[in-house]
Parts: sequence; C-alpha cells; structure tokens
Amino acid sequence: MTDQAPSRPDQPLPHASAAGVGVTAARGFRASGVAAGLKTTGAPDVALVVNDGPSHAAAAVFTSNRVKAAPVLWSQEVVKSGLLHAVVLNSGGANACTGPLGFQDTHATADHTADLLDTSAAEIAVCSTGLIGERLPMDKLLPGISAAAAALGPEGGAAAAEAIRTTDTVAKVAVVNHASGFAVGGMAKGAGMLAPGLATMLCVITTDADVPADLLDPALRTAVARTFDRIDSDGCMSTNDTVILMTSGASGVVPDVAGFEAAVFEVCDSLARQLIADAEGASKEIRIEVANAADEADALEVARSIARNNLFKCAVYGEDPNWGRVLSAVGTTAARFEPDELAVAINGVWVCRDGAAGEDRRLCDLTARQVHVVVDLKAGEHTATVWTNDLSKEYVHENSAYSS
Amino acid sequence: MTDQAPSRPDQPLPHASAAGVGVTAARGFRASGVAAGLKTTGAPDVALVVNDGPSHAAAAVFTSNRVKAAPVLWSQEVVKSGLLHAVVLNSGGANACTGPLGFQDTHATADHTADLLDTSAAEIAVCSTGLIGERLPMDKLLPGISAAAAALGPEGGAAAAEAIRTTDTVAKVAVVNHASGFAVGGMAKGAGMLAPGLATMLCVITTDADVPADLLDPALRTAVARTFDRIDSDGCMSTNDTVILMTSGASGVVPDVAGFEAAVFEVCDSLARQLIADAEGASKEIRIEVANAADEADALEVARSIARNNLFKCAVYGEDPNWGRVLSAVGTTAARFEPDELAVAINGVWVCRDGAAGEDRRLCDLTARQVHVVVDLKAGEHTATVWTNDLSKEYVHENSAYSS
Repeated sequence: MTDQAPSRPDQPLPHASAAGVGVTAARGFRASGVAAGLKTTGAPDVALVVNDGPSHAAAAVFTSNRVKAAPVLWSQEVVKSGLLHAVVLNSGGANACTGPLGFQDTHATADHTADLLDTSAAEIAVCSTGLIGERLPMDKLLPGISAAAAALGPEGGAAAAEAIRTTDTVAKVAVVNHASGFAVGGMAKGAGMLAPGLATMLCVITTDADVPADLLDPALRTAVARTFDRIDSDGCMSTNDTVILMTSGASGVVPDVAGFEAAVFEVCDSLARQLIADAEGASKEIRIEVANAADEADALEVARSIARNNLFKCAVYGEDPNWGRVLSAVGTTAARFEPDELAVAINGVWVCRDGAAGEDRRLCDLTARQVHVVVDLKAGEHTATVWTNDLSKEYVHENSAYSS
Repeated sequence: MTDQAPSRPDQPLPHASAAGVGVTAARGFRASGVAAGLKTTGAPDVALVVNDGPSHAAAAVFTSNRVKAAPVLWSQEVVKSGLLHAVVLNSGGANACTGPLGFQDTHATADHTADLLDTSAAEIAVCSTGLIGERLPMDKLLPGISAAAAALGPEGGAAAAEAIRTTDTVAKVAVVNHASGFAVGGMAKGAGMLAPGLATMLCVITTDADVPADLLDPALRTAVARTFDRIDSDGCMSTNDTVILMTSGASGVVPDVAGFEAAVFEVCDSLARQLIADAEGASKEIRIEVANAADEADALEVARSIARNNLFKCAVYGEDPNWGRVLSAVGTTAARFEPDELAVAINGVWVCRDGAAGEDRRLCDLTARQVHVVVDLKAGEHTATVWTNDLSKEYVHENSAYSS
C-alpha cells in the first residue's frame, strides 16, 4: 500500500531527512519557521504553511473542550468552507481565555497573513500554543509573520516543525510516500495536556493527492479517532487542540479512498506515537490493550480508566507490576465484565488470572521504556488500545516549576 | 444542636483525648487494637469494635468499585439484616482480588470472631486494607483476633484507630457529644486512593443513641454523600471502602432525626477532612467550591473535574495560581455555563473574570497549606464543594517506591 514498512508499536515511521520534511514532503506546499520573540528564549516561535494548489481542499478536527482558544474558534469557522490557503501557527502563547480582545488578535493575525499571501483571511487557519490566559504580543507576532512569509520555501517543513515546539524536546514530523504517486506529510507538537478529544497538540498534515474536501473530512476524523484520540498522557484536555489536513492536488493523483485513508492514518499514528514518546517528564510509554470486550466502547472506557489512574502510573514509574491497581481502575467502569474472570498481563506475564494473582509478579521486567499492559475482559471480541505515560517526579516538576 | 462548635473548613472538630476516644466515645462499645504480625514493621494491625447493646442496629456504605474485596462482599451481605454485633478490621493486607480462597479467609475471620464473642458470624462485619492481590496470613490473623478480643475495653478506641492505619501518618478519630445526651464517635483510615464512591478508606462510627436501622441507613448515606464522597485526593477509587455505623442505644436517648443526622454528618465531615489533611505526599489541601451552578450535579461534575486535573494539581504544588488550567478542566464537563462568563477566584483573588484574565495573579498568596478555589458558573444558584490535594513529587515517590 505504501513504500514504507507498516507502522509498528515500538518503531515510529522513518521520515525524510532532507527536503520534503513534514509539511513540505507533499508537492505544492511551502513552509517556514522563524523567531518572532514570543518565546523569551529567542527560539523559533512562528510557523507558516502555505498551499500553492491547484487544490485548496481542507478539513480539520478541533478540541472538544468547551473552553476553546480564540484561534480554535476562528479556525473552526474558516474551515467550514472546506478551503484553506494557509495555516499560521505560533508557540509562546495559547491565546486562550483572552476574551473578545484575544479573538480580535486572532482575526488580525489572519488578516495580516492573508495580506502577505494576497488572499482572503477567510482562507487562513490560525493555531496558537503556550500559556493560557495571556494576550499575544501582537507587536512581535505580526512582524514575525512577515518574516515567516519572506522565508517560505519548499524545504521549510523542518523549520516549521521546529517553530511550533513548546516543551517538546524534539520536533515531530512524519511522511508517507504512497506507491501510487502521492505523499502525505505532517508535523505536530504537544508534550503536556495530552488527552483525548484531542491530545493537546497542534498538527498540520499536507498531501498532494487530489482529494475533495468531502473525502478529506472523514479520512481525517477516522484517523484522528484511532490515533490522537487514543493517546492520553495525563488526562488533561487542552483548549487549543487542532489537526488540519490540506491538499494541494499537485501530484495529479486521484487516490483510491482506502489507500488515501491508510496513508493519513499512518502519518497520524506516527505523530501520535512521537507525542507519547516525548511526553513531559515521562520515563515510560505504556500501551494499554483491552481485549475481548463486548464492544469497542467498553474496551476504550476500560483502557482510558487505566490510563488515567495515577496510582497505576506511579507504580509503572517505580517499575512495580501492580496489577491490583489495574483491576481497581477497571472496576470503576461500566464496561461489561465479571470481576472474577478478569486477566491482566504486564509485559507478557499474566500476573492476574480469574481476578486474582496469576504468575509470579517478579517475572515482570519493567526496566525498559516500553510497557505493554493487556487486560482480558472475557466479555466479547472487541479490542481497543490507548497509549499513556507513567506519572513521574519529573512530570510534577515540569508542571509545577513554571506556568504553562 | 451539639455541644461542640460547628465544623469549619480549616478547623477539624476537636475530639476527646482520654477514655471515650473514637469508637468508644459512645456508651455500649468496647474496642481494641493489637499487633498480629501482618505488617512487617510490627505495628498494630488488627482492630476489633464490639457493640454490647442493648441495640445492635447498624447500617453501612461500601465502595462503588465493581472489583470489590472479599471483606466488602462479605460485609455487604451481613449488614442487610440491619444488625451487627462487631466489626473486625485488619491493616497489612486488603484481601482484594484474591478469588474464592480470599472469600473463605474472610468467612473464617468472621467465624473466628463470632466464636470469641459468642455470637453468629452473620453479625460480624469484616474490613481489610493494605496491598491488593495477596492472601492474608491467616495463621497470624486469627491469633491476632483472639488477642484483640482479650484486649477489648471501653477505652480501646484509640488503640483501634491506631491499628487500622496504613500509610496514614496519624490516627483519625472524631466525637460529637450531643446536648440531648447521646454521643457519636468514629475512626477512619485512608491516605491514598482517596476518591469518591467512597474515598478509599475504612470508617467505623458508633453511637449510643437509640435509633432503628431504618433511620440509621439514610442518616449515614446522606452524611457520606456530602463528606467522604466529596474528598477526591487522587481520583483513584479503592476496592475496600467501607463505612459502618452501629448503635448500641445505651444512652437511652431517642434523638430527633435532624439532630441525629447532624451529629453523624459532623463526625463524617471531621473524619473526611482529616483524611485529606493526611493524604499521601500532599503539601496542600485544596477546597474547590463551584458556585452558581444550574443544579448540584453540575456543580459537582465541575468540582470533580478540577480535583482530578493533574496539571492544575501540579500548579498548586508549585504555588502557581494557574487559572487557565482550572478553565481547561471546567471546559471538559457537560455542565451548563458559557465559557466567556466564567470567573475563578484563588485564595480570594478573582484571577479570572468573564473567561479571561481578571485581577493580577501575582496578588495570589499560595504559600499556606490551605488553598481555596471558587469557580462561578453564573448558571444558577447551586453550589458544591470537593476537597482534594496537590500533586506532589512526594505523592509520586510514595506510590512508586513500594507496592501498596
């Protein structure tokens, strides 16, 4: 289906290393990343991604948090047309909980970007990330966008990915080059507030496949529901989450729907894994697989309950195969199961069988970064997997030592 | 209504200091606490509370976790009669997730206690707390219960409270002496897994008022719903939570219902506060008050969402008045509110008004242990308060460094 190896849990997709990284892997896109001075560190903080067409079809998914940042409120409106010319992104400030003036700032950001690109603000999506509750320094942001427009280029994907980082220790990009001649590439940022609906993050995905907006939207929603919505690092849902998919159609390839959806899924899956791998303060990546559920919703509810159980997450941090805490979390759900039939495997060792102690817990080796938990509900044939992290002293430190 | 000052948020009820502490404050009860060797430290780990009557009316509330420990399954059954002769409690092992053999252990525990007290096992409640998933060492527990029976006395309340401690740094007891001549006293333990339905805890409350079981049950449920069910230290619900209320009727006083309910509430409220004050690794006690909700359920949903937001709890640990994280948590609920009308006060400073920055956050003083957060939903007239703790490095340490 693609010219890359299929994605595997413990091996994120490789991505292109030279030109064509991330959002500029697909033809028809230019990007850039510059330092506008929003971050006190002087690191890059403004990114621009421009679709040169010929198509401008686009789709997007946003946070389900009811407290939405101004750029989310803005971008939700503009994407309704199914067309986007560009996305302008900034780190160094979320522009969330900033009231009507914050919305005016987003509007001005789109206007300024549209002027520079000689298009309409109604085709400019805006994404912001950083501290909640403070206005953006527009006197720095607008000149930054001008600089970003001047720096646009077909090799700008790496710089753009760099400029949207907040506490991310590395930039996240992914590319799938499909055998039929189109590419899907993307970038994402997000290291804290990673929870479904979406994981707290910004993500821009580009493709040069020729796909109309009414096919883009379901492809994106399907992919997001099983990737970004299934990483749950810390149970916290952000005000700014945005995933945007834009197509230029520049490859001229009209892909088959299944192949296109699979490519979008692979890029989302890779980026989601990269987010979990770089979550704030985490020392473990925990794959929670709930098997034999009566339906997928049950499986997901159980997996999320475990992923959000602080005591279990502390135990994993301490490399303690504490299956009792897993069962405690399972028991708080309404999923169909019998408590005395539950089984739990941790890193391949069935430490709990029939709701009680199974194999010797000392057989579990939790020293590696990757931890795999399987819960067998014995209630049906459905499965769901959620990715999370351990709860570490470093997480507490990162999230208490400074405002974010 | 009582001869004690009304309970205040920052001032737990005083309790008697000599004879008549906790469960032996009310006439007609004897208690004891002994070391049976279940704890490797040699600390007391078996407690017994005996009701000498003349009444034996009792009521109880149990965890809503569907994975219930053997003693919960047992005690749920025996209390259905509305009669209890005694409660036997152990720390040093939860007897949860131990299968049919674990249930047999609980049965044997009740049988042995009944023999010692010359009564029926059907009138013996059993409570256990400690590590999940391991069988209890019955060869130590049963002789321990014999020793506890031999040590029973009308001044044993303090020893009993001591023997049910796990990671609690102090024993928790409370007493209300009502002006009409009856007393309500209680003891509780619980320091981790504190979350509603109930807070992970064991609690025994005794009274010498003459109240039939059909009035005990609603009095207990009402009190628990607004006390233990509203402390949510770490979002984790246990398999063993039990609150038992027994009356001896030994005072001969038939109280008015309102006065009795108020006394039971006060004891529960005091014990719940003591649990939050002693929560594992906590450096702050956070009172989250949600005001002007459309109904109480909305207020409670919002308060719980904030109480479970790890990022907010880390911010409080860092003494950072991060109201943006409060709004992020509010936004994940289905409660009725308009995002741009929300207001948040932290320790009296309205840092958020109309969904955006209000007074200068630097005016917030978060150095004290007590933190008070008010969220104004501006959607009605209902209020709910939930108590929680900060998320600290010490919490992570306590819950990762050993199995519990």
